[in-house]
Amino acid sequence: MRLFLMPSDYDGSPSLELTGKDFNYLIRALRLKEGQKIMGRDRNGCLWDLCITHIGRSSCTLSSRKTESASSRTDALPESRPLRPIILYQCLPKGRKADDIIKKATEAGVRDIVLVRSANCVANLEGKEESRLGRYDALVAEAIQQSGSLVPTKVHGVIGIEDIPADLKARSGGLQTLGLVLHQTRLSEDQSDLMACVSGFTGCTALVVGPEGGLEEDECRILLDGGFRAVLLKTNILRCETASIYAIGAIQTIVESSCQ
Amino acid sequence: MRLFLMPSDYDGSPSLELTGKDFNYLIRALRLKEGQKIMGRDRNGCLWDLCITHIGRSSCTLSSRKTESASSRTDALPESRPLRPIILYQCLPKGRKADDIIKKATEAGVRDIVLVRSANCVANLEGKEESRLGRYDALVAEAIQQSGSLVPTKVHGVIGIEDIPADLKARSGGLQTLGLVLHQTRLSEDQSDLMACVSGFTGCTALVVGPEGGLEEDECRILLDGGFRAVLLKTNILRCETASIYAIGAIQTIVESSCQ
Repeated sequence: MRLFLMPSDYDGSPSLELTGKDFNYLIRALRLKEGQKIMGRDRNGCLWDLCITHIGRSSCTLSSRKTESASSRTDALPESRPLRPIILYQCLPKGRKADDIIKKATEAGVRDIVLVRSANCVANLEGKEESRLGRYDALVAEAIQQSGSLVPTKVHGVIGIEDIPADLKARSGGLQTLGLVLHQTRLSEDQSDLMACVSGFTGCTALVVGPEGGLEEDECRILLDGGFRAVLLKTNILRCETASIYAIGAIQTIVESSCQ
Repeated sequence: MRLFLMPSDYDGSPSLELTGKDFNYLIRALRLKEGQKIMGRDRNGCLWDLCITHIGRSSCTLSSRKTESASSRTDALPESRPLRPIILYQCLPKGRKADDIIKKATEAGVRDIVLVRSANCVANLEGKEESRLGRYDALVAEAIQQSGSLVPTKVHGVIGIEDIPADLKARSGGLQTLGLVLHQTRLSEDQSDLMACVSGFTGCTALVVGPEGGLEEDECRILLDGGFRAVLLKTNILRCETASIYAIGAIQTIVESSCQ
């Protein structure tokens, strides 16, 4: 299910006019026509049935009516079930790579993005966690809007590798969990095949992705001892910003397909 | 199988010294030790058995011996079969997004990246195709090195949507082909599930990804008439630079798993 994130200044009136990015999204990207409907969510989390009443050259007008259920339909978008929860534990990458990872993971509906400190992290948010998380919140809001995601993605952190197993337990909300660590070099023990791991799984999947230099073997050990499984992707060695969305694509495609 | 792309000035001598990025890659990223082996490829395409003979603070020395077969092993990297061919038909996105898409697709071992002109493309390479393709070649070379990919990824184009079916036939080299179009809005006909489409497929997969505004319905029609299948990803609406690597991750994970 997808929805339209309404402008922050929307006051609850029965009609609203959209311009700029919002207009482009509905009319140019989704190509909605007059008379078509879309479900909206305001900044307080309330849902609205919206209907396009007029389309101009650079603005459009919508009627709006508050609704209780998330079952309203959005024309031009296929209906779908809520997505299975995915949690991304991302070891801090350098510079702006985190932005790229957070945007893409949010678009794909990852529920929690937890930033992690690990031995090979070059980046260090010490003393600037708050301002950085504020910036990430803005990126997330934009990506939710753009992707029409119904998942309230949040960025958390920074935690240590050793805190991951307990953090996952706390976030799983009682659902069965499947913890996976991407590891592209050879470990002394068996590494699992991603497809075999996630096929048929219907709980909460957690994915740990290392920083540029990868995870150290003793860091992997902590996670394996905490119930995680080491996964070897059947591809080349991916940069961390590629590995995260590559694996999310694979996990979500397999999991959403299994639980039809 | 992964390999090390040797420096362009390597002259075929029986030992070579590496510094800078090459040193970092082998010693810091792969964490190879003295005595360990890696397979190398020089800029003429010849393969070399390399062995680390000395590691210094910022350089390392390797012995090298020409080899005929690609069966030599690389320590610290798991062995793997050659990847199944994937062709990405990417409608031209705006600005630097193409760089991001090309880098990530190359890392994942996509064999051909064909740039496509479509109705909603804002970008236009007319008159600058040659210089742009030259720049992409440099990005590809860097990504092959970084990922240790054995796939000789090439960027081609620019072609029109209507040329895609014939282009795929020409590139498939007689292998069975599976053409997929990502389409995130509702079509009048059935859209397939990616998992169902690619499970068990062992031929050459082609993936068409639209530009920012998506593909027009008549463009989809051309591809469907040309034997392609429309795929609806079970996720939110992804930006084109997210959709490509998301879908490649899913396709490769499923295909490589099926053909064990």
